[in-house]
Amino acid sequence: MWLGLDIGGANLKAADGRGAARLRPFPLWRRRGELVQALAELIAEFSEADGLAVTMTGELADCFETKAQGVAAIVDAVVKAAGGRAVRVYRNDGSFAGPQDALADPLTVAAANWHALARFAGRYAPQKSALVMDIGSTTCDLIPLVHGLPSPRGRTDPERLVSGELVYTGVQRSPVCAVASRVPWRGFLCPLAQELFATTWDVYLLLGDLPEAPDRTDTADGRPATRQAAHDRLARAICADRTMVDWAAAEAIARAIAEAQLDQLAEAADRVISMLPERPTSVVLSGQGEFLARRVLERLGLSTRIVSLAETLGPDVSCTAAAHAVAVLAAESTFA
Amino acid sequence: MWLGLDIGGANLKAADGRGAARLRPFPLWRRRGELVQALAELIAEFSEADGLAVTMTGELADCFETKAQGVAAIVDAVVKAAGGRAVRVYRNDGSFAGPQDALADPLTVAAANWHALARFAGRYAPQKSALVMDIGSTTCDLIPLVHGLPSPRGRTDPERLVSGELVYTGVQRSPVCAVASRVPWRGFLCPLAQELFATTWDVYLLLGDLPEAPDRTDTADGRPATRQAAHDRLARAICADRTMVDWAAAEAIARAIAEAQLDQLAEAADRVISMLPERPTSVVLSGQGEFLARRVLERLGLSTRIVSLAETLGPDVSCTAAAHAVAVLAAESTFA
Repeated sequence: MWLGLDIGGANLKAADGRGAARLRPFPLWRRRGELVQALAELIAEFSEADGLAVTMTGELADCFETKAQGVAAIVDAVVKAAGGRAVRVYRNDGSFAGPQDALADPLTVAAANWHALARFAGRYAPQKSALVMDIGSTTCDLIPLVHGLPSPRGRTDPERLVSGELVYTGVQRSPVCAVASRVPWRGFLCPLAQELFATTWDVYLLLGDLPEAPDRTDTADGRPATRQAAHDRLARAICADRTMVDWAAAEAIARAIAEAQLDQLAEAADRVISMLPERPTSVVLSGQGEFLARRVLERLGLSTRIVSLAETLGPDVSCTAAAHAVAVLAAESTFA
Repeated sequence: MWLGLDIGGANLKAADGRGAARLRPFPLWRRRGELVQALAELIAEFSEADGLAVTMTGELADCFETKAQGVAAIVDAVVKAAGGRAVRVYRNDGSFAGPQDALADPLTVAAANWHALARFAGRYAPQKSALVMDIGSTTCDLIPLVHGLPSPRGRTDPERLVSGELVYTGVQRSPVCAVASRVPWRGFLCPLAQELFATTWDVYLLLGDLPEAPDRTDTADGRPATRQAAHDRLARAICADRTMVDWAAAEAIARAIAEAQLDQLAEAADRVISMLPERPTSVVLSGQGEFLARRVLERLGLSTRIVSLAETLGPDVSCTAAAHAVAVLAAESTFA
């Protein structure tokens, strides 16, 4: 069995391609030295794994000076954690490389997880035109599919930012001051402080779109991912506190930020869709931001067939979709 | 001698009101437990201090749930670090309070440093209409003076954000993704990643507006405040690295972000000026962002008399202007 690993800057994800999946918050930029240990523990949870299929975005984490350095560190950590298991790294042309080949051409394996996801998702949307929308904690991938195959305009991260296929905004980690510039307060528009006081997690906690997670403290202020703490964080985003911004006022602030994020995603999705040969007849959704993806489709008036990976394969697989994808693609591949 | 202390969320500032001043980076939100010790060390550098005149903005740091809690913790830390010296806390009505009175009415001492600065600066600009512009690492204060006295529309932080008198953007700590949304890259407009990859410090390092500080590592990635590391950080802000964004491309990115910040400040300054009884005949400048304040005046076509505190009192005092102000105001006050 191939275990799929998706190694990001904020989360480690593992999936066996058969329905089991794990997501572990892991701030790589702060805990780089613990990566081997964290991976070894994650791999140990899948006793049947005899090979590791790897994809990553963590090479962008700012503990690395360049992407090449990041790819080298991550591949090295996987090999050390692999305990002798085979390691294959997914490339953004759909092939797998051994560790040495991956290191020789690092930009082909950097940030390739979207391609693996799209290759896998294509089987659910083999029509002439389709779209994959994966909205996660930090980023959103909008990948055009033509006859079930990825048909992107960009390959690298900045190319994909330009094309709208990567929108670097998500439903948990995005600073609210990057999503919106002004929010309503006491009948005025109040500029948000340009400071990491609150994130989109707080917005969707307050609006009830994401469940409370009292054990998660990887929030803007290190306090729990609860609605009460989210209220405090959103008040702080305009340099206030809960005595100056009551619950209803915090909800109004949250709605304004959610609306700004929806605008950004709808604008990008509209551009990506405009490059397809025809209006998409299927949309494949994955990630913990599926609720937001559905709002984007509604905003665009795209009442097309929706394939929800959460409904089809379960929420755990949906939130680790690229790890699941590389596991499945590796199992289907024939390695020399 | 009264020692002025300005206790912020990112920096501790001390000044004796006679020309000596110190700025110590101190991330209060991470090192709250070390505040007493850090203050004691700072106070010890001024052997003639027999009283402490205090102002603050650090109560907003997200280690505190509310401003009242933050004020209480900061006043308590000052009293503990004071070694028996008298402690007076500046209020946003221009008076000083003892520690107990400050705690009884915490919102009057929270974020009052702008008021102390304006009271002090008024002596350099006694005309009918004048403006104080203090641009620091994190925030910018734009304070209207009428006949040399502060004449603000807002008192609290959110009120001042609404009025434009507080612009929560600065020349070092502001995340670039909060300042701008898109930057030029290879002839395209590329959205910035909504992530704390780079700050305005990198922008002004690259453009040569701020000097390199290789010993300072309170940057976005914990690497030094050098031009080379700033290049890496700005490249990462569009999910690239130095191999994909050369020096000239990084400069173009920096210019676009600087331009966006200038726009925001000019818009706010224009609004603040419009509420003065007439066009200001003097502008008092302070803070490490004086270069940016001068660009704002130029943009607004305001060729008025400029009083630079850096030129008048020296750059150290200018960068700790509110601490200098409370020291001077305390020395001039008669306490019961």
